[in-house]
Amino acid sequence: MQSEQDQPKNLKWTFRNHSVGMIAENDFQWVEEKAPDAGAGEVLIRNVYLSLDPTNRVWMGEKDTYMPALKRGEVMRGLAIGVVEKSNHPGFKPGDWVQGLLGWQKYLVSNGEGLIALPQIAGLPLEAHFGLLGHIGLTAHYGLLQIGKAKPGETVVVSAAAGAVGSLTGQIAKIQGCRVIGTAGSDEKCRYLTQELGFDGAINYRTEPLPERLRELCPRGIDVYFDNVGGATLDAVLDLINDFGRIVACGMISAYNQDDVFTSRHMVNIVTRRVLMQGFVCLDHPEFAPQAYQDLIRWHLEGKIKYRVDVVEGLENAVTAVNRLFTGANQGKLVVKVS
Amino acid sequence: MQSEQDQPKNLKWTFRNHSVGMIAENDFQWVEEKAPDAGAGEVLIRNVYLSLDPTNRVWMGEKDTYMPALKRGEVMRGLAIGVVEKSNHPGFKPGDWVQGLLGWQKYLVSNGEGLIALPQIAGLPLEAHFGLLGHIGLTAHYGLLQIGKAKPGETVVVSAAAGAVGSLTGQIAKIQGCRVIGTAGSDEKCRYLTQELGFDGAINYRTEPLPERLRELCPRGIDVYFDNVGGATLDAVLDLINDFGRIVACGMISAYNQDDVFTSRHMVNIVTRRVLMQGFVCLDHPEFAPQAYQDLIRWHLEGKIKYRVDVVEGLENAVTAVNRLFTGANQGKLVVKVS
Repeated sequence: MQSEQDQPKNLKWTFRNHSVGMIAENDFQWVEEKAPDAGAGEVLIRNVYLSLDPTNRVWMGEKDTYMPALKRGEVMRGLAIGVVEKSNHPGFKPGDWVQGLLGWQKYLVSNGEGLIALPQIAGLPLEAHFGLLGHIGLTAHYGLLQIGKAKPGETVVVSAAAGAVGSLTGQIAKIQGCRVIGTAGSDEKCRYLTQELGFDGAINYRTEPLPERLRELCPRGIDVYFDNVGGATLDAVLDLINDFGRIVACGMISAYNQDDVFTSRHMVNIVTRRVLMQGFVCLDHPEFAPQAYQDLIRWHLEGKIKYRVDVVEGLENAVTAVNRLFTGANQGKLVVKVS
Repeated sequence: MQSEQDQPKNLKWTFRNHSVGMIAENDFQWVEEKAPDAGAGEVLIRNVYLSLDPTNRVWMGEKDTYMPALKRGEVMRGLAIGVVEKSNHPGFKPGDWVQGLLGWQKYLVSNGEGLIALPQIAGLPLEAHFGLLGHIGLTAHYGLLQIGKAKPGETVVVSAAAGAVGSLTGQIAKIQGCRVIGTAGSDEKCRYLTQELGFDGAINYRTEPLPERLRELCPRGIDVYFDNVGGATLDAVLDLINDFGRIVACGMISAYNQDDVFTSRHMVNIVTRRVLMQGFVCLDHPEFAPQAYQDLIRWHLEGKIKYRVDVVEGLENAVTAVNRLFTGANQGKLVVKVS
């Protein structure tokens, strides 16, 4: 029989405060405790990679959104990849890789609900499930093609284009034969977009005048806007949107950290130019995942799509790391190596 | 041979200025001149009813929208119903009723392009083509049912609900089995909505606190918002919109007369609640007109739909009358009796 002394230690961040502004360590509680053990019908999972996403901020709000608001004392919600350490569940065996809302913790016990077994895909490392597939890949593919309906020759603008979703979206748009312009927060990111990912143009929104540069780079107007940020970028696009343009409302990161007011001089164009604006969350559309993943894996293996994973070591650094999504300091899909 | 003396006099308003704020007589030129005569293949039309619509203001802007911006000296664009006085065109004969973009004038000559012959419908007066059918009826029917997809039991909010489009929209929503709340600019209009048209509730946005009253009257949130006004009403709705809600962006009258800034604290809900917002112009969807008119005529003859036409006498009063759309002084579909 295993003694208490031998049982592994669990590490976790539990949720403490709804707050505004950047995420603070104080919004969470760091807990070290005995790891749980798998009971009848359960599996014990050790998390390996934790995904950090802008939507983490949405979940930390006071109100329920597409998921319930977090409650004080609850483990912080997070998508993660883990390995099964012990299983009393017929569907899983030790060594299996699984993905799901496994939370900001090292160990957890699950009854199998919501757990997705990850296949081994030749040529793809484990991190590809966060950089290329999973919620990132499905969001980019579904948003651009099912909502945006991007067609050859059209002009597509992507904001937060060097981010995980944005960089995939822009590359998919290039594969569709579109002219693709991205916005990002540094010259280095802009160079990455045009020189590495094949974007037709990139705008550093921190140093360049966005409305003027967008107008220069989109001489035939904008047909599809894949919006990750909202705010002033959305308004600048509304000025240039073409008749029957589509705005894929994927995120409004500019509004997540503050009680932000959107101001627009061009909302009326939604009516006069017959614009579609559609919010979405990829979790609502799992039926599109198989086709999306098949395309993305094929395109990646053919060398048409690149992705970057930005790995932070150690669960204890998750809280400071998540803010890199809002300052723009991350380079590609942000994940924490938990163990 | 007819002498010049006998030829009828034409009256017309030509366009002069792009301007901001309310429409002024000075934005137009009043012209009295000899009426034109029909040449080979042409028809001479005498306008009888001229439709005044919020979109007149859109056409008067500096930029092309879904139609080209008006040019100085051009007859003011307007939808009208007229009678054929003389015809050298095989498709029309004297006495035929026709509808089209006939302009703010008493007489005009047409080659037949864009002219729609109006059928005589038993039980419906000529004005029904503006109050119930035509662009008003198609806009309400298409917007609510094709874009809004209003379903029984859902909550529908309509702004400018006592206006021509709004009052039809609300009544169609009632026929669909929806809970219907309207906003309007006077207590009398609100009484009209609830007591005459069967709305479940009405809010006087000038005297009542809109966000609070909307919340009271929409205890299960808002599923469909038929937006004729934009601005603060749109933002209040965005706060209460349900998951998968639909915003039918029909008009933004609040933005037409000024270089208006839309400010919103709730745009992020478009993403998190997966909201559809779709701008449209009924001219793009003529294929839906036959079904829409069939429904509207049947519902009207069954007593389920009422409409009001607010008739202003005399083309010379068109410019002052059109502002009643923006002050809210009109009672139902605003038309000018031209002759």
